[in-house]
Amino acid sequence: MARLELNILGCGSATTSLRHMPTCQVLNVRDQLFMIDCGEGAQLAMRRMKLKFSRLSHIFISHLHGDHCFGLLGLLSTLALQGKTGSVTVHTFQDGAQWLQQGMDYFCRERPYELKFNIITTRKAVIYEDDAITVTTIPLRHRVPAVGFLFAEKPKMRHIDAEAAKFHKVPLYAYNSLRQGLDWVDADGIVVPNAHLTKPAERAISYAYCSDTMLSRRVIKAVEGVDWLYHEATYGDECQRQARARYHSTATDAATVAHEAGAQQLIIGHFSNRYNDDTPLLEQAQRIFPATRLAYEGLKVDLNEL
Amino acid sequence: MARLELNILGCGSATTSLRHMPTCQVLNVRDQLFMIDCGEGAQLAMRRMKLKFSRLSHIFISHLHGDHCFGLLGLLSTLALQGKTGSVTVHTFQDGAQWLQQGMDYFCRERPYELKFNIITTRKAVIYEDDAITVTTIPLRHRVPAVGFLFAEKPKMRHIDAEAAKFHKVPLYAYNSLRQGLDWVDADGIVVPNAHLTKPAERAISYAYCSDTMLSRRVIKAVEGVDWLYHEATYGDECQRQARARYHSTATDAATVAHEAGAQQLIIGHFSNRYNDDTPLLEQAQRIFPATRLAYEGLKVDLNEL
Repeated sequence: MARLELNILGCGSATTSLRHMPTCQVLNVRDQLFMIDCGEGAQLAMRRMKLKFSRLSHIFISHLHGDHCFGLLGLLSTLALQGKTGSVTVHTFQDGAQWLQQGMDYFCRERPYELKFNIITTRKAVIYEDDAITVTTIPLRHRVPAVGFLFAEKPKMRHIDAEAAKFHKVPLYAYNSLRQGLDWVDADGIVVPNAHLTKPAERAISYAYCSDTMLSRRVIKAVEGVDWLYHEATYGDECQRQARARYHSTATDAATVAHEAGAQQLIIGHFSNRYNDDTPLLEQAQRIFPATRLAYEGLKVDLNEL
Repeated sequence: MARLELNILGCGSATTSLRHMPTCQVLNVRDQLFMIDCGEGAQLAMRRMKLKFSRLSHIFISHLHGDHCFGLLGLLSTLALQGKTGSVTVHTFQDGAQWLQQGMDYFCRERPYELKFNIITTRKAVIYEDDAITVTTIPLRHRVPAVGFLFAEKPKMRHIDAEAAKFHKVPLYAYNSLRQGLDWVDADGIVVPNAHLTKPAERAISYAYCSDTMLSRRVIKAVEGVDWLYHEATYGDECQRQARARYHSTATDAATVAHEAGAQQLIIGHFSNRYNDDTPLLEQAQRIFPATRLAYEGLKVDLNEL
């Protein structure tokens, strides 16, 4: 299994279609599932992609438009029916928390898990942290308050070369300092360089989710140097005016963000239902940023494979 | 096109599965669409079944469990995005109206159509009427207040036999009285029997929707003589105890209602997600009521074909 795997559950936009589901993603971080947005039908899409409800504990909502949150009541009710324990934290704006709390208290009062809220704002902030990752909000530019989310793996520890450590008689208690990159000084005062005792850590990966937003300098700055960027590309170049008017992006806009931020890879999504084929959007993006791919329902991306 | 056509959009129960969608039906009455319950994904199911949003003006909600109403916000938002005009009336309990109004006012404030509510109670009442049909609530027996809906076509008018009417020199102004079944008395006082001047009217069809409910005498009485009965059959006989405990029906219960009410045809649905195959439920029902069929997503039934 990938250490970090992105699952696309839905990558359509507000007006529904039979080609795409409304927005929802699940980031699998070593078998802990982080949901990003939760459009209508998210719970079914989880089943379709064989993502376990029991492993889902955090849901991040980018903004309070229906196509990004109307799946919450159904999903959270199903978690209750499935007997999920522990807690589920929904990271959302105050209004979203209030709406959801009221709905859940009416429709799903008996919950075997604890429903928690983490109230976020549009100011850039670290909103989640554990041993493996941090999640930081990215201020977006949309018609309503909206944020993206930057998931960043923490720097990894180096791996002990067991043979070498044994040869140099490094005691077990010192292994942690080796993992952190320190050299070993033995009883005779001889320094054994860390590089002789350990192997390099895996690269810490970062993933940024930016939807919905129009092209924005602040977004580019916030995702600078990111490995993987998901950026909305609701429209093609021919609809640039609509994109601006509705605070959305074109595929060219998305590619511009990836290019200027120095991202490694770009995934575009949130496609308008006017398109029966999204490849023209791909082509437009690739003119500026060749390492672009299209999101589609069911797509799994191993983010460790850069 | 059928004069009266039932569309099954979803016939699963509360715990979602990949086999069935949550409950939703659309009754097409001469191209006017009446939705009955609106589980999550109803709007997509409408698209799948090629049912036009523009023709939907009435939505009847049986009870306020999520699997019967979580599709409302998404559907009503999409109607707004599609530019639906006129009005949409949601027939529901007070709590449901309040929840939906609040949600729509937050998520979909700008609506090109008027959103109306018709507050229903658990007392039997005619809640809708037009030239073609009446809709009457059926008190159900569930864990929360719940009603079914009896859709009854109004008695049809007889058809003028144009040749005969011309032969007997019936003036046009008298045609309506002929349609109503009256005889014709000509200028010489000679009575021409109605049967010589008209052909029989089509049969007025009735359809009753009963979900969710446990077996109930009151339900049987309320649907007495109905042509078509949709009755929930969440469980098979082996789960009779669960059915009772959760105020649901078995397939045998559903068939008992159809049999004792003297229905013509039975459709069972609201299947528990424990079943990978619903045919055992069909067999159990058919032992008591042979004219039973299984609901499934995408099923269209011409209710005129009895």
